[in-house]
Amino acid sequence: MKITNILFTGRLVDELEGLLNAEEMLNGRRVRFVPDGEVSSGDLDWADAFVAFHPTISFHFGGIKWVHSLGAGVDRYMELNGDWPEDVLLTRTITSFGRKIGEYTLSYMLKEAQHHDRFREQQGRGEWKMVAPRTLDEMKVVVFGTGEIGQELAKILGFFGVQVEGVSRSGRDKEHFFRVMSLEGVDDSSLGAADFIINTLPLTKETAGLFDEQFFGCMNQAVFINVGRGGTVHHGALLNALDSGALKAAVLDVFEEEPLPADSPLWSHPGVTVTPHISAITTPEEAVECFLETLDAVESGVELRNRVDVGRGY
Amino acid sequence: MKITNILFTGRLVDELEGLLNAEEMLNGRRVRFVPDGEVSSGDLDWADAFVAFHPTISFHFGGIKWVHSLGAGVDRYMELNGDWPEDVLLTRTITSFGRKIGEYTLSYMLKEAQHHDRFREQQGRGEWKMVAPRTLDEMKVVVFGTGEIGQELAKILGFFGVQVEGVSRSGRDKEHFFRVMSLEGVDDSSLGAADFIINTLPLTKETAGLFDEQFFGCMNQAVFINVGRGGTVHHGALLNALDSGALKAAVLDVFEEEPLPADSPLWSHPGVTVTPHISAITTPEEAVECFLETLDAVESGVELRNRVDVGRGY
Repeated sequence: MKITNILFTGRLVDELEGLLNAEEMLNGRRVRFVPDGEVSSGDLDWADAFVAFHPTISFHFGGIKWVHSLGAGVDRYMELNGDWPEDVLLTRTITSFGRKIGEYTLSYMLKEAQHHDRFREQQGRGEWKMVAPRTLDEMKVVVFGTGEIGQELAKILGFFGVQVEGVSRSGRDKEHFFRVMSLEGVDDSSLGAADFIINTLPLTKETAGLFDEQFFGCMNQAVFINVGRGGTVHHGALLNALDSGALKAAVLDVFEEEPLPADSPLWSHPGVTVTPHISAITTPEEAVECFLETLDAVESGVELRNRVDVGRGY
Repeated sequence: MKITNILFTGRLVDELEGLLNAEEMLNGRRVRFVPDGEVSSGDLDWADAFVAFHPTISFHFGGIKWVHSLGAGVDRYMELNGDWPEDVLLTRTITSFGRKIGEYTLSYMLKEAQHHDRFREQQGRGEWKMVAPRTLDEMKVVVFGTGEIGQELAKILGFFGVQVEGVSRSGRDKEHFFRVMSLEGVDDSSLGAADFIINTLPLTKETAGLFDEQFFGCMNQAVFINVGRGGTVHHGALLNALDSGALKAAVLDVFEEEPLPADSPLWSHPGVTVTPHISAITTPEEAVECFLETLDAVESGVELRNRVDVGRGY
C-alpha cells in the first residue's frame, strides 16, 4: 500500500511534528499536524493515513486507507458507528507496554506486601512496631489477559516465584503462566484464594462490564488492579465489594470516562488508588519509532505484528 | 564438636521453645529457654551453646563453645569487651534475607519511580494530571556490599535491566554487578550520577560512620536506602544532605539505636521513611531451620557456610 498523505491529530501532535519534521523517513510524503478540535472534513478526505490515539469527534473515513492508533487500546475506534470498512487497515502502537505495566503493577503489589501505608502511619505516630512483610512467592495472583502485557507481567512475577494463573478468551496455555483458564471457565475458588487480581484485558464486547457484582462477590480480601480498560469494570459493584470487605483495595489506572469525572466516588474512597492512566504512557519518541516501523511494513507489504483484528477488537 | 547444653534467650525465645520441643532433633540434648533479663551467670556456665540475636547485658563466655546469632548481623557480639576467644565458634543465621531485602528495597525504588506520593496527593485534590513513571532500566544504582544480600539485590535489579555498580572492601568482581569498586576507590562521579544508593554493609570498624558529610556531599538528588546497619550512617550528615537537596529522600530500616528513640528528628523529617527493622525479619520457623542445620554441621565437623570470621567481623 502506498501512503502519500498522512494526517496526525490529538495528544502528542506537537511533539510528533517536532520529531517527524527532523526525520528523513517522511521525505516525499505530505503530512498535516492538526490539533484535535480543528480537524476538518477536508483533512479526512485528503488523508490516506490517520494517526491519533482515537478518532476525532466528527470522524469519517473519507480517503483513509490506514488508521494507526498511537495507543495500545483501539476500543474508541471500535465504537465508531457502523461497521469498520473492510479495506481500511487498523494498526496499534506496541512498545515496551508490558515492561511499563509490569513495573506499575509490581509497585502497587509490593506496596501492599511491604505494608507501606501501615509503616507510614506508624511513623506519623512515632511508633516502632515490627510487622513482617509478605514475600511475593506467598502470593496468589490471577491475571486477566494473556497477551503481550499479561505475559510480561507473568514473567516478572514468575521471577519472584509467583505461580501466576491466567484468564483468556480461549484458555490456551501461555508461557510464564502456571495455568490458563477460559473467560467462561474461571474457577471461583481461584478468585476466592487470590491476593491480587490484575486486569490487562482490552475493552471488547466480551469484556465490557465483565467485573461485576457476581465477580467481585467471589473475592476474599483480594486487591484488584486495573491496567486494562475502565469499561470492563462495574464501578458500583467495585465500591460495594470494598465496603463489604470482599475487596481489600483497588488500584485503578483506567476509567470508563477519562479524566475521571470530579464527582466520581472513586476519588475519595479510602480503599481506592486512582492514577491518571500512566501505567503505559507512550512517549513521543516511542510513538514515532513504532509509527515509522509500521509505515515501512505497510508500504512493503510485510506481515504486521501490530495489525488489529477488527472482528475480535484487539 | 559435641553440643549437649543449649541456652536460648532473647526475642523469639517462646516461639523457639514451641517449635523445638516438637523436634526430635534435640533428643538427648538439654535445653534452657530463658527470657532476656533472666539469664543467670549459672546459665552461661552451664551452656555449651548460646543462641540469641545478641549477647545478654551481663554476658560472659562461661562454658560456651559455640555462639549462634539468630540474626544475620553479629555487630552486637563484636562489641563485647575484650577479644573474642579463639576457641569459641560464632555462626549467624542465613535464610532468605537476600530475597526479602531485595523485595523491600525494590518496593521503595518503585514507589519513587512510579511517583506513588505524587499521585496520592493528586488524588486527594481530585486532580488528573499525567506524569510519566520512570522505568527501572533508566536508573543508576550503586549498592554498598556485594555479599549474599547485595548480590541478590543486584540480581533482581539486573532482571529489570539495571546495570548495578557495587562497592566492597576488596573491589573484586562479583556476579550480577556491572562493576565493583573498592571502598577506598569509590568513584565520586558514580555517586553523583546515582538515582539510588543502597547500603547492605555490616557494621565493622571499616564501615562505622562510613556515610558521612563528605559522602553525602557527592550525591545529586539520590535516594539513599539503608538495609545494612544504622551505625554506618552519620544521621546528622544525612539530614543536612536532605535539607541541601544532595539527597532526595532516605529510606531507613536500621538505626544506631533501635527502637529509634522518640526524640530522633528522623521520625518527622518529610524526606525520611522510617521502617522498624523489618526488611529481613527472621521468622521463628526460619530461625529453627537454620539453627538445626548449623547444629548438625557443627557436630559433624563439615564446613560452615554461615561461620563468622571474627577478625573481619562478618
